[in-house]
Amino acid sequence: MSADFTTLAEFRAVLAGAPGTDQKAQGEAEARNGQLTKPPGALGRLEDLAIWYAGWRGNPRPQISAPQVIVFAGNHGVTAQGVSAFPAEVTEQMVLNFQHGGAAINQLAKAAGATLDVVALDLERPTADFTQDAAMNEDDVVSALATGWNAVSADSDLLVVGEMGIGNTTSAAAIANALYGGEAADWVGRGTGVDDAGLAIKERVVREGVEKHGNPKGLKALQTLGGRELAAMAGAIARARSLRIPVIMDGFICTSAAATLESELSGALDHVVSGHVSAEAAHGAVLKQLGKEPMLSLGMRLGEGSGAAVAINILKSAVACHSGMATFAEAGVSDG
Amino acid sequence: MSADFTTLAEFRAVLAGAPGTDQKAQGEAEARNGQLTKPPGALGRLEDLAIWYAGWRGNPRPQISAPQVIVFAGNHGVTAQGVSAFPAEVTEQMVLNFQHGGAAINQLAKAAGATLDVVALDLERPTADFTQDAAMNEDDVVSALATGWNAVSADSDLLVVGEMGIGNTTSAAAIANALYGGEAADWVGRGTGVDDAGLAIKERVVREGVEKHGNPKGLKALQTLGGRELAAMAGAIARARSLRIPVIMDGFICTSAAATLESELSGALDHVVSGHVSAEAAHGAVLKQLGKEPMLSLGMRLGEGSGAAVAINILKSAVACHSGMATFAEAGVSDG
Repeated sequence: MSADFTTLAEFRAVLAGAPGTDQKAQGEAEARNGQLTKPPGALGRLEDLAIWYAGWRGNPRPQISAPQVIVFAGNHGVTAQGVSAFPAEVTEQMVLNFQHGGAAINQLAKAAGATLDVVALDLERPTADFTQDAAMNEDDVVSALATGWNAVSADSDLLVVGEMGIGNTTSAAAIANALYGGEAADWVGRGTGVDDAGLAIKERVVREGVEKHGNPKGLKALQTLGGRELAAMAGAIARARSLRIPVIMDGFICTSAAATLESELSGALDHVVSGHVSAEAAHGAVLKQLGKEPMLSLGMRLGEGSGAAVAINILKSAVACHSGMATFAEAGVSDG
Repeated sequence: MSADFTTLAEFRAVLAGAPGTDQKAQGEAEARNGQLTKPPGALGRLEDLAIWYAGWRGNPRPQISAPQVIVFAGNHGVTAQGVSAFPAEVTEQMVLNFQHGGAAINQLAKAAGATLDVVALDLERPTADFTQDAAMNEDDVVSALATGWNAVSADSDLLVVGEMGIGNTTSAAAIANALYGGEAADWVGRGTGVDDAGLAIKERVVREGVEKHGNPKGLKALQTLGGRELAAMAGAIARARSLRIPVIMDGFICTSAAATLESELSGALDHVVSGHVSAEAAHGAVLKQLGKEPMLSLGMRLGEGSGAAVAINILKSAVACHSGMATFAEAGVSDG
């Protein structure tokens, strides 16, 4: 399978032609929810999640049996400016760790019953330093979008995308600043743990990048300020939409990448929920902009898809209740 | 196996003689956590949970392979006053639903890989209306504590206790009011969904009960204002402590029952974490009193152990990372 686009214009057309939720299945799921053996609304958020999932799957009584986690890795030219507490080599070292099963995401995907794919994008070819030039030219960003698009299995019934890329909270902050305005300081944080000096550098780098590229929006923000792994996440999220596979977003970097799709086309993330809000302060602000309420708030800030992988369990629990519970009539329980 | 107590005085002695955490195992788990392939603290709350769990299991690299969920059911004399939106018969109907696998907790326990036991306590013999008399005499409360105690499997490595009992949010509110003071109105909520008139009745019933029994504390509050299923939950939590089995608390009723142990003996809940904060407003206030931060906030208010059962997945995820991840040295990753 190869991607259905070779230019950004073609990718935009794919986004515009993507399917919506199945209103009939969603309505039937809502009706079923009202008959289950519990007081109305007593499962709280789990009820909304199950109905949302049923609509996207076009099945009023769905199952989740094939969740897929994909971790995309990329390297960033801005690391040369000292924006991270870790050297750029760690991106590749962590890819090996993913491949050998030693990282957090390996354990979390397994605990959630998900498959895990790891896709490294041209690690030997970092993106350009976005304070100097566009992070990617059009061919590069389209290629990364296509890599993400092609990584999604059509047999999956739930998708989590995560990332590894030393320096990529700086990219995410620049995108968020470009999309939503405010000051660079509003969007930068300590990432994996930079000190005050590193934080000041991040702020300057973000400010310069956003100015340099003229507060870009949508896919232009992804191209000029993003990274290959961010573009791949966006491509995978778009592919999931075309296959009606619901998506759980991870942290700040994943959410900023996804936000470029919503900025490009309102509603592009209707098949996406937020798995968690991370300890990176700007993440909550991006989620607010997107109107997405996180399922979890556990102070995580690792990336790799880790928070979203934990949240797979929440969605599975929601769908298990929805599809497995007896109705009042089936159970012979008085419904108040 | 039978319980190690036949009077409240003996049960108090059991509480006082219970083991603490294993400091050595906890210290070793902390040391291991610092070497895992992630930035320090990047797994947030998951790190604290795994270390806490390791300490109680006495194993710096533990597994969770045998979680047990027990749902206790009891009937309440105060239902005659009209404190619930559902008739008292629903307690028994829901027990049948649990036994037939049709309730939310059946699906949630299965999704979390937990066994589920259902224990109905003398449903044909409701507790006394606590506005008139003590809900239970000493023999009754000791018997219910023992039922809970005996229901815990020594082979379990994690315990969730839940409940079913029409009218039991009124019991929980009365206990919380007795333990923590304030007004009855501070502690009553809509439970399964009472209307304004029902809410006014609940408030009056709680106020009268707390006054009648003189703001009781500790096990006295459990006996005079509680219910058989609340006492059984308390007994099971105490048994888990004696076996060093960590416990995840469920919602308002479970937490109020547990709070009587902490009120009786400070530290009695050190082996207990909060699985979630429910939509019943007073639940958050009880958790604050106990200094317990919930893992989840999903607007659930069902009881049955449902919120805690979802939280089993979080703790399993935490422990899977802790015990399964590679160290920086093992993975050959630069640690910053």
